[in-house]
Amino acid sequence: MPTNRQILLKSRPTGVPSAANFELGESPVPEPAEGEVLLRNLYLSLDPYMRGRMSDGPSYAAPAEVGKPMVGGTVSEIAASRNPNFAKGDIVSSYAGWQEYAVSNGAGLAKLDAAVKPVSLALGLLGMPGMTAYAGLMEIGQPKPGETLVVAAASGAVGAVVGQLAKLKGLRAVGIAGGPEKCKFVVEELGFDACVDHRGENLRERIAAACPKGIDIYFENVGGAVQRALWPLLNNFARVPVCGLIADYNNTTPSPGPDLRTILVKRITVRGFIVTELWPKYPHAFAELAQWYKEGKIKYRIDEVQGLEKAPEAFLGLLQGKNFGKLVVKLA
Amino acid sequence: MPTNRQILLKSRPTGVPSAANFELGESPVPEPAEGEVLLRNLYLSLDPYMRGRMSDGPSYAAPAEVGKPMVGGTVSEIAASRNPNFAKGDIVSSYAGWQEYAVSNGAGLAKLDAAVKPVSLALGLLGMPGMTAYAGLMEIGQPKPGETLVVAAASGAVGAVVGQLAKLKGLRAVGIAGGPEKCKFVVEELGFDACVDHRGENLRERIAAACPKGIDIYFENVGGAVQRALWPLLNNFARVPVCGLIADYNNTTPSPGPDLRTILVKRITVRGFIVTELWPKYPHAFAELAQWYKEGKIKYRIDEVQGLEKAPEAFLGLLQGKNFGKLVVKLA
Repeated sequence: MPTNRQILLKSRPTGVPSAANFELGESPVPEPAEGEVLLRNLYLSLDPYMRGRMSDGPSYAAPAEVGKPMVGGTVSEIAASRNPNFAKGDIVSSYAGWQEYAVSNGAGLAKLDAAVKPVSLALGLLGMPGMTAYAGLMEIGQPKPGETLVVAAASGAVGAVVGQLAKLKGLRAVGIAGGPEKCKFVVEELGFDACVDHRGENLRERIAAACPKGIDIYFENVGGAVQRALWPLLNNFARVPVCGLIADYNNTTPSPGPDLRTILVKRITVRGFIVTELWPKYPHAFAELAQWYKEGKIKYRIDEVQGLEKAPEAFLGLLQGKNFGKLVVKLA
Repeated sequence: MPTNRQILLKSRPTGVPSAANFELGESPVPEPAEGEVLLRNLYLSLDPYMRGRMSDGPSYAAPAEVGKPMVGGTVSEIAASRNPNFAKGDIVSSYAGWQEYAVSNGAGLAKLDAAVKPVSLALGLLGMPGMTAYAGLMEIGQPKPGETLVVAAASGAVGAVVGQLAKLKGLRAVGIAGGPEKCKFVVEELGFDACVDHRGENLRERIAAACPKGIDIYFENVGGAVQRALWPLLNNFARVPVCGLIADYNNTTPSPGPDLRTILVKRITVRGFIVTELWPKYPHAFAELAQWYKEGKIKYRIDEVQGLEKAPEAFLGLLQGKNFGKLVVKLA
């Protein structure tokens, strides 16, 4: 009987998670019932939000269950079909979790355009992270030509798209990233106007130097020291889409936030969002992003790890910024 | 020669201002030139924002000048006119500052509807505070029937209007005020559903008890302990118009703000605003407010102090919540 390898959530972390919170499990490959398909997962997406799913505190989504496979986005091949909407060999985006196989009744599966390669883009530029960048920037960022945008994790899954979209909209795009290699990539490959290394002294001064006209949009996906450093640099009427707080996810209590006096005096808008809620407002986003990608106007780096068993280590590295580009695990 | 008494800004405060930051001055009543009018000020408005004008830190408006009269809104009678748009005896709203007389070229003067009494309403419900409540609630609060709104300083110039507007829009309105007398007034006279005394223990628990369905709109005009107490009670998609932070104005450095994690997880919108920038979007606000006032649907309490020389003490009391209703100084 073929085996379905899975990464199970073994226990919930307090503070920084470790490999001990996960375990490798095995179960039989499931059989699709009438109306179902068997998914063979080709790629697994690893994303910062998964840290939230490991905990059972209040959040916008239910936590992953202890003893069950971790949740996560996947690209899968239809290995067997008893559902008339899918044929064996179809490639779909899915949400099949940290495992090699899964069954699905077809809900939430979307066939991928075979012309767009690599298929793992469906977990990045043309998936949740790309939509997060697009919808968060357009809906809350309200970008205007000539303005200045700052985004951290600028070589990562979301930040890379945010900055390149800002450039396409006529803004100055300033990235923040960890280390000279990533900063070089952000400027030379992704085409940002500048990139500031968050490691090192005088972070505020270096961000200020990269933003001579101040900051109109701060796309917040890290929090922590970067947020504190740049807060005084925000311009009047700045917009701050709050998309993620990776620097804060392992804190058992949230850090204090930016002072309300600055928000008042500068008439700043700070708004949290979850991509799934904005997604329906941007039905053409993926077509636009795919077109720009084909034309070379948007570049996208994927950081690919081989083998399901590597997922926990890769995920823990993601929380420390060790990935370089959108992190995926190649499963097959 | 007649004398114009003035309250001058003598020095800028560090932290809590005192009477020593002001001084009474006298100068000759000015003579209007061709095109100008002489204003005899009848009422002076005292408002929390004036604390900001006393300092020269970064803000949305220039500070008051040391040695000059403090700035402020007024209701004035045209005492002499060399401007064809105004006749002697007209009553106008103006921004003539803490003094008994001023000249004006007419810019910014608006004739008052003689049918709406008392004329000091033009400094409250039918002036800047009323518009602050109306525009901030409508533009940023986005009130929806059945939701719950909380506003502090609920018996005050802005808070009283915010809560009564919320009631008119079908919301549950919960006030926060200092002491049982104000709380009784907020519920029995203004018609709020509940009012919580911010003095005393277990503030969060008492606010929670008054908001059984959580908080959808927190109209922020105080900051400090009230903000910290109610932050965890905000619902998903809550809106927080940031209008004022009276509890924070005397701090030399701003207090830390609410954590971004809650803003993210609950998709909260926090937005600072200045009434003058939203004013043009609500051209019918005063007509509506005046109509509701005439019909008794909105009540408005004015706390009137007699004599210019009382302005500093009354203003310092305002910063401590000693006023009861919209604070004005009757000058003549």
